[in-house]
Amino acid sequence: MAEIKPKPINKTPEPTLRRLPWYLAYLKIMHTKETSVVSSTQIAGAIGIDASQVAKDLSYVDISGKTRVGYEVDQLIEVLELFLGFNRKHKAIIFGAGSLGKALILDSGLNNYGLEIVAGFDVRADLIGTTINGISIYHPDECGSLRGTLDAEIGILTVPPDKAQEVTNIMVDGGLKAIWNFTPFRVKVPENIVLQDTSLFSHLAVIFNSLNQADL
Amino acid sequence: MAEIKPKPINKTPEPTLRRLPWYLAYLKIMHTKETSVVSSTQIAGAIGIDASQVAKDLSYVDISGKTRVGYEVDQLIEVLELFLGFNRKHKAIIFGAGSLGKALILDSGLNNYGLEIVAGFDVRADLIGTTINGISIYHPDECGSLRGTLDAEIGILTVPPDKAQEVTNIMVDGGLKAIWNFTPFRVKVPENIVLQDTSLFSHLAVIFNSLNQADL
Repeated sequence: MAEIKPKPINKTPEPTLRRLPWYLAYLKIMHTKETSVVSSTQIAGAIGIDASQVAKDLSYVDISGKTRVGYEVDQLIEVLELFLGFNRKHKAIIFGAGSLGKALILDSGLNNYGLEIVAGFDVRADLIGTTINGISIYHPDECGSLRGTLDAEIGILTVPPDKAQEVTNIMVDGGLKAIWNFTPFRVKVPENIVLQDTSLFSHLAVIFNSLNQADL
Repeated sequence: MAEIKPKPINKTPEPTLRRLPWYLAYLKIMHTKETSVVSSTQIAGAIGIDASQVAKDLSYVDISGKTRVGYEVDQLIEVLELFLGFNRKHKAIIFGAGSLGKALILDSGLNNYGLEIVAGFDVRADLIGTTINGISIYHPDECGSLRGTLDAEIGILTVPPDKAQEVTNIMVDGGLKAIWNFTPFRVKVPENIVLQDTSLFSHLAVIFNSLNQADL
């Protein structure tokens, strides 16, 4: 029999991509506890979802569990990190070095998960020319001339909402391939650009509303 | 005809709650542009969703648009902020004043949207007794004795993943009513506790994977 296995080009569904980091976090805890093998049932129990869902999600990853035994923890961690892209650096630039932007530059956790912020941009004169956590802050006008040097593919958007679309356009024109939008404004991007929204304010709205409901 | 209108106790669906802050952000931009009236079609066009969806979402809020005219911008901003709870302070304490925790304490944006962080907790000796942005950092053991004074209802979870469940239990036992989980670990809470997950790492996974797909 031929050994050739064609690489599957199945696109991993977004809900699966969102869940895989949960499994990874659990596996890393198991690793510190010196557990060497886990089953999908164990993972499912720890996370509170169906074991069949875990098995299905893991089927997108290039690893196979031994029936009745499970997955080797160390191996599954390695494969998941590789699959999710957490073990190699993805360069990003951040637009808006105000409150939230500065906070994200200071958050080393993102760096541990493969995001390397290489520069910040802001219009505020008192920020331009300074560094935050070793990251230089430039005027947005310098973005074009710096693009080649910086070689970033991800743009993080932490500007005021009324500047969100304008700055997104600058980032797209500048050749960035993905926009990570932290503003509450829904920006529009061309179809070939990856857009991920993380609206902390939407999450706050859900929390506040649920608390008020509970108070009724 | 009687004027009495019973207060609707319809629970606002979570997707609606997530979208309402988008409309609010757009309306605030319209306000700075001195636009006084907007239609749901305009809001929909700006955000890139169906006008019927906008109208349906806004039907949960206690405001009515004038047919063929639209909503008064200032009034709708006020009503939305009231409805979403952004215009009154909700006290929160934060567990884990490391990288991300510190970042959130420094982010004044959350404060503008109704979240008031009143204290931080961390086990690191070099952090205990210090203040970050005017917020005191305490040892978790002090949480019980401080609860009455702090009067917080929201607990923000920014500890390492392997401490996430343990600290969640402490927060729930301490009487907090909502947990905002920023760790990649899926914590479990009793049914009456509000849980909101914000996993930046899941969002990173989606971005990285989409970029890799685009490269194929």
